[in-house]
Amino acid sequence: MNRKMEKITTEDLKFMSLAIREAYKAKGKTLPNPAVGAVIVKNGKVISKAFHEKAGQPHAEALAIERAGDKARGATLYVTLEPCNHYGKTPPCTEKIIKAGIKEVVIGIRDPNPIASGGVERLKAAGIKVKENVFKKRCFELIEDFIVNVKYSRPFVSLKLASTLDGFIADEKGDSKWVTSKKSRTYVHKLRSYHNAVMVGIGTVLKDDPLLNVRYVETEVQPDAIVIDKDLKIPLNARLIKRRASELIVITSEKSLLNYKAGILKDLGVKLLPVSSSGKYLDLTEAFKTLREQFGIYSIMCEGGSGLAGYLLENNLIDKLYLFYAMKVFGSGIKLFDSSRKGLKGYKVLSVKRLGEDFLVIMFRQN
Amino acid sequence: MNRKMEKITTEDLKFMSLAIREAYKAKGKTLPNPAVGAVIVKNGKVISKAFHEKAGQPHAEALAIERAGDKARGATLYVTLEPCNHYGKTPPCTEKIIKAGIKEVVIGIRDPNPIASGGVERLKAAGIKVKENVFKKRCFELIEDFIVNVKYSRPFVSLKLASTLDGFIADEKGDSKWVTSKKSRTYVHKLRSYHNAVMVGIGTVLKDDPLLNVRYVETEVQPDAIVIDKDLKIPLNARLIKRRASELIVITSEKSLLNYKAGILKDLGVKLLPVSSSGKYLDLTEAFKTLREQFGIYSIMCEGGSGLAGYLLENNLIDKLYLFYAMKVFGSGIKLFDSSRKGLKGYKVLSVKRLGEDFLVIMFRQN
Repeated sequence: MNRKMEKITTEDLKFMSLAIREAYKAKGKTLPNPAVGAVIVKNGKVISKAFHEKAGQPHAEALAIERAGDKARGATLYVTLEPCNHYGKTPPCTEKIIKAGIKEVVIGIRDPNPIASGGVERLKAAGIKVKENVFKKRCFELIEDFIVNVKYSRPFVSLKLASTLDGFIADEKGDSKWVTSKKSRTYVHKLRSYHNAVMVGIGTVLKDDPLLNVRYVETEVQPDAIVIDKDLKIPLNARLIKRRASELIVITSEKSLLNYKAGILKDLGVKLLPVSSSGKYLDLTEAFKTLREQFGIYSIMCEGGSGLAGYLLENNLIDKLYLFYAMKVFGSGIKLFDSSRKGLKGYKVLSVKRLGEDFLVIMFRQN
Repeated sequence: MNRKMEKITTEDLKFMSLAIREAYKAKGKTLPNPAVGAVIVKNGKVISKAFHEKAGQPHAEALAIERAGDKARGATLYVTLEPCNHYGKTPPCTEKIIKAGIKEVVIGIRDPNPIASGGVERLKAAGIKVKENVFKKRCFELIEDFIVNVKYSRPFVSLKLASTLDGFIADEKGDSKWVTSKKSRTYVHKLRSYHNAVMVGIGTVLKDDPLLNVRYVETEVQPDAIVIDKDLKIPLNARLIKRRASELIVITSEKSLLNYKAGILKDLGVKLLPVSSSGKYLDLTEAFKTLREQFGIYSIMCEGGSGLAGYLLENNLIDKLYLFYAMKVFGSGIKLFDSSRKGLKGYKVLSVKRLGEDFLVIMFRQN
């Protein structure tokens, strides 16, 4: 009867794409809330658009309804995430949708958070037509960081690696800076803007003196910079200190806090986060927990080097892998994965994209 | 006035896709002629479809017109390659199109062969509306083998390589057989069916004992098998000899012809092609010329091993590169390219495809 699967139309795809684009405007800025976008459409025309800006601000669908005013009556709402059905910081969106007289709701993905879910059932009970799973994979990607935070109570962690076709991240001189093209580097900056912080090991700081900020695309908020630096080797004239001291967090050993340099760094405005060591390495599981709870960092993009990348993979701390391949062959150099690594068990390919002459393989951890 | 670019519609894309699919039915079987497909459409409905089957048989557009009969009048012809304008084995297609009363011709790509070209101008002169460059890249790919034969008077050569994410074609034991997935292997068999012959070095025969035929997809014609075997090391109980002797060509040194084994192989129906050596290697430029002129082999797919692949790349004999990546990490093993190779200069990415959990990078040589 009424239980057959609703057919997804090209119009659904078009307007859901628009809603996804809305959501991306605040991707990374909404955490610990999910990024959500909404579009209200009537007779094939967009009435209003909105995205959730940050925690404490209105939900995307509520804002879109508000903007649509009386025109919402009889219209279709496209929303990337199932509307919430509970009283949180804002009243339930389902009630607003019902009250506004929305006729149909098209949803990208169900809310994986059990507290907020139940929206679909509430809407259907009110006689509203509901379509689900329109661009589900893309809508999942929008909230992947949110999901990891809910599920594991730790920040979402992405790892970026850039390789030649034959699996080298740097040539024999260790030069890796320009493995990928301008187009890929722009894409990396976009990815940075979707995270709360960009992280590297101290080796990368000593070699490349990076800024780790967003430059090639526009952003209103810069991600923080995190450096893993057990022995406080960071040079006081590093660009990160000279230009971004107040946005810099250095994760170091408890012992290094006694170092005279620790005092200088603190005076410069650098935040020091001491964690215990397990053997050779700092305990980053502990560090990530603190970053989330005390520094409000819910998502981190790690950009190397290979030692840090290896440690994170080994400890199952990578949720998403961005593997850039450049149309280059080095023949020899520094390997993409060291010879101890025999696989990427548990990871699945989400998509493969071309970026000019490069291509990008995006993988995510399944469990 | 009438000189503005004609707009390509979604209908054009749909019917050109259909014409391309027609052409692929005989891809590799039409050489030295190009693979061509044609579709005749009237009022949004397909009236007839056809493809060029092989040299000496009617051209695709001529066949489609014949099949359409009177219905061709006032219809639109979609054809992947510019209709010919010269008297070859068949009269010019342009005249048939004009005579049939076709109103509009939509073309994938212009004929790069100067002898056959001029079709667009002839059609326009007869008052027929002509649209060009619809799915030009895909239509180029259809005739890439034909183009190389016209341009260089040698067979078109593809190279297939299968690598792990970190650039290994085999593990430390040399085991490469299952680097890629079932889906990729099926795709490789489809690629084999698009070529006149499948080629490997003797090392691959000794290690894998391959059949080099098309099994996972249907084909009416099996490609020949070619083995590069300077010293006639091929075992007499190799599956290629036991099961495909009459379809097997062994390229060997002139000296090896004096070997007693040469006589046995000939008696078994194996064709031996002696060529001169330049240093350590057989002169494959010479061999390819002979394969084309005496054996009617206009396209070859090389499937390794890495020594042969390296030689072909070094000698600028690879026109297209199929680089399969499996979602695997070996950490160590046999490298995708040996350390002397520093680049793939002159190659450009044509496309990147996902094949289940694998992905495929297709590159072509630009010059």
